[in-house]
Amino acid sequence: MTTGAFFNTYVTNGKEWNSKMIKAAVLGFGTVGSGVVELFDINRKSVRRRVPEGVEVKYILDLREFPDSPYADRVVHDFNIILDDPEIRVMCETMGGKEPAFTFTKKALERGISVCTSNKELVAAHGPELLRIAKENNCSYLFEASVGGGIPIIRPMNTSLAPEYITRIIGILNGTTNYMMTRMEQEDISFEDVLKQAQDRGYAERNPEADIEGHDACRKIAILSSLMCGKTVRYEDIPCEGISRISMLDVAYARSMGRAIKLLGISERDWQTGTFYVRTAPYMVPASHPLHGVEDVFNAVFVHGNLVDNLMFYGRGAGKFPTASAVVSDMLDCALNIGENIPIRWSDEKMELSDPALNSSRFFVRIPASEKEKASRLFRGYEEVSLASAPADEAAFTTGSMKESSFEDCARQLSEVRKVIRLLED
Amino acid sequence: MTTGAFFNTYVTNGKEWNSKMIKAAVLGFGTVGSGVVELFDINRKSVRRRVPEGVEVKYILDLREFPDSPYADRVVHDFNIILDDPEIRVMCETMGGKEPAFTFTKKALERGISVCTSNKELVAAHGPELLRIAKENNCSYLFEASVGGGIPIIRPMNTSLAPEYITRIIGILNGTTNYMMTRMEQEDISFEDVLKQAQDRGYAERNPEADIEGHDACRKIAILSSLMCGKTVRYEDIPCEGISRISMLDVAYARSMGRAIKLLGISERDWQTGTFYVRTAPYMVPASHPLHGVEDVFNAVFVHGNLVDNLMFYGRGAGKFPTASAVVSDMLDCALNIGENIPIRWSDEKMELSDPALNSSRFFVRIPASEKEKASRLFRGYEEVSLASAPADEAAFTTGSMKESSFEDCARQLSEVRKVIRLLED
Repeated sequence: MTTGAFFNTYVTNGKEWNSKMIKAAVLGFGTVGSGVVELFDINRKSVRRRVPEGVEVKYILDLREFPDSPYADRVVHDFNIILDDPEIRVMCETMGGKEPAFTFTKKALERGISVCTSNKELVAAHGPELLRIAKENNCSYLFEASVGGGIPIIRPMNTSLAPEYITRIIGILNGTTNYMMTRMEQEDISFEDVLKQAQDRGYAERNPEADIEGHDACRKIAILSSLMCGKTVRYEDIPCEGISRISMLDVAYARSMGRAIKLLGISERDWQTGTFYVRTAPYMVPASHPLHGVEDVFNAVFVHGNLVDNLMFYGRGAGKFPTASAVVSDMLDCALNIGENIPIRWSDEKMELSDPALNSSRFFVRIPASEKEKASRLFRGYEEVSLASAPADEAAFTTGSMKESSFEDCARQLSEVRKVIRLLED
Repeated sequence: MTTGAFFNTYVTNGKEWNSKMIKAAVLGFGTVGSGVVELFDINRKSVRRRVPEGVEVKYILDLREFPDSPYADRVVHDFNIILDDPEIRVMCETMGGKEPAFTFTKKALERGISVCTSNKELVAAHGPELLRIAKENNCSYLFEASVGGGIPIIRPMNTSLAPEYITRIIGILNGTTNYMMTRMEQEDISFEDVLKQAQDRGYAERNPEADIEGHDACRKIAILSSLMCGKTVRYEDIPCEGISRISMLDVAYARSMGRAIKLLGISERDWQTGTFYVRTAPYMVPASHPLHGVEDVFNAVFVHGNLVDNLMFYGRGAGKFPTASAVVSDMLDCALNIGENIPIRWSDEKMELSDPALNSSRFFVRIPASEKEKASRLFRGYEEVSLASAPADEAAFTTGSMKESSFEDCARQLSEVRKVIRLLED
């Protein structure tokens, strides 16, 4: 080991010891937390190339014991042991949920310990406050893993895209729902069956609401929107619709139009007013759009900057090691910047969102066949969509681009509207 | 302007003046260089968010005069004016070519001026030497724009992917050839016609050799491979094949197999030997691969890390503002790190490449119909490919995975081989 002589490193009983090694703590030894601890062992060489002193996980905080784990001797149950150890400079919070993660993170930052997290719930709810505390205490709060799992997106937004005026972000931000939509499209299986399959494979929770109702994707687009504008976009203010009402018939219609239905988080900046339009909903994505080919559990974030034009970042949005990799990349940045704050522009000033009713888009609509004639007169840009396998009593069409409010006015004049899905444009 | 009072900034005659502004110089006022200068004006606010002091382009070096340019008064013809001005801390080299870019870059770095470039030719030829000089002089040499234009790839490789052991990079690294292949596929026009079209639209040079023979893509995969291993992969050592021999018939065969032909740069790490297999060649890419949907002038870099798994970075690989955006993101990093070196691991130790003859892949082959019987016995995994529009005297097939050397041994036993194109696996 070339750095050995310099840093006085040696290996005893498989454990490396080095007087200058940077000491870290991992909070929560679940899927991602254990991935973080293992990564420091598996990819020790890569870690050393970035941080020559090396990083050692000194403590693992968890309520449980792990007697069979090779890391059993590092497990502690009292957070104060970590807080009171002046050697600890970096912490990873992979507990999830708001409490006690919020309290622990705050206390650590107040002592100048940098915190890196995959906890989107906490970041979406308290990001700006934690960033402010980090800045005041010359340490950092980083959260690359909170959006898009292993995909580098937060750091590129803060560094590579710094010269840009970002005007649009469209993300496939939830792997569970993207897996479900892909399976429905490719295997013609119903929503209920594919949900069961996803649960059996461990892709979906037993209580799948946060995923399938869009809440998870909504938190993530709230984080990305906040980073876009430097203010706070509250996820509670974002219109949010999941995929639980998408049927095999909708999927078949989409396919007949050369489109695929995906749950998207969308954030658009209005050039004139400077306000943001944000929404989480299923969209029909055309084959020509780069997001169309993003299948199964993969995520992708499509970004439009005023000068760089279109970019897309694609990868695994979840999973033990992809997520751990993103957390560790943040931990290494913190280890390289001890005593300094890595700035992220996100204030707690609330961002005014534009009225979603004033946003324009194209719509796909299913109605009773008896309303076809009327609909063709009501909706601007009416275009019929035919599907051999559709019920005989049904008609479907797409509209031209129209305001949500005008669309609703027209739709109210029909006796029944069976389904509405927005179209994503190229 | 909120920072105004603090930094003593004011605007006179449209020019901003600030005693603390970081002074920069732009070498080469061509497409990218002028984009860099304009970007600092167009996106001044974004620049200020990252570098609150602001950045001012004080000099533009070019042999020509630009009397009608709003930046005419900044144009100088003598490099020594820039070199001898102690205010200059950051330089952008957008001249292209090896000389005088190499000499100018070296001289600037020796004076502690950081240099950011889009010049892949210079980076591929002298990257490690310039990185060493930068380090010795506490400044930086950054080259995000040298690969993939506006796509963030170099910085993510050095930061976000630092914890990873990268095992594979596959890139669509040349926009001109990707545009040509996309047009041939979608519009059924010949190579000659599409080349003319690309030249008319300004996508291809009058002398298109560097693009269509793969030299440009080869330099870029050499840079990415070098960053993967931290040593030098010389582009002269990489087997390089362009697209000039791809015909409409090949494209039709690919389409019939659900594939598209793309010019790829491939770099793979052999786990057992630690050596690298690198190649630039046209490949038939299956529809299921994320690179399949990368069309027209877009570029994409597919990366596989041992823990993060598959990632893809997609965007505009060329063009005035996308490339300028990448150069400026580097310049801002340098402005934030004056007096410090931003480390990039790339030594001038030569990387041993594995023997390409020992690499395995699947092949698509066109032969005379008379050789069909023999070929089916010779090639392991022989699978016939039929195409209605193919000449009557022709047969085509794909092989199973086999070593290049075994493939050549078999191919030599046929009276004629009309075309060989490698298949990219999922």
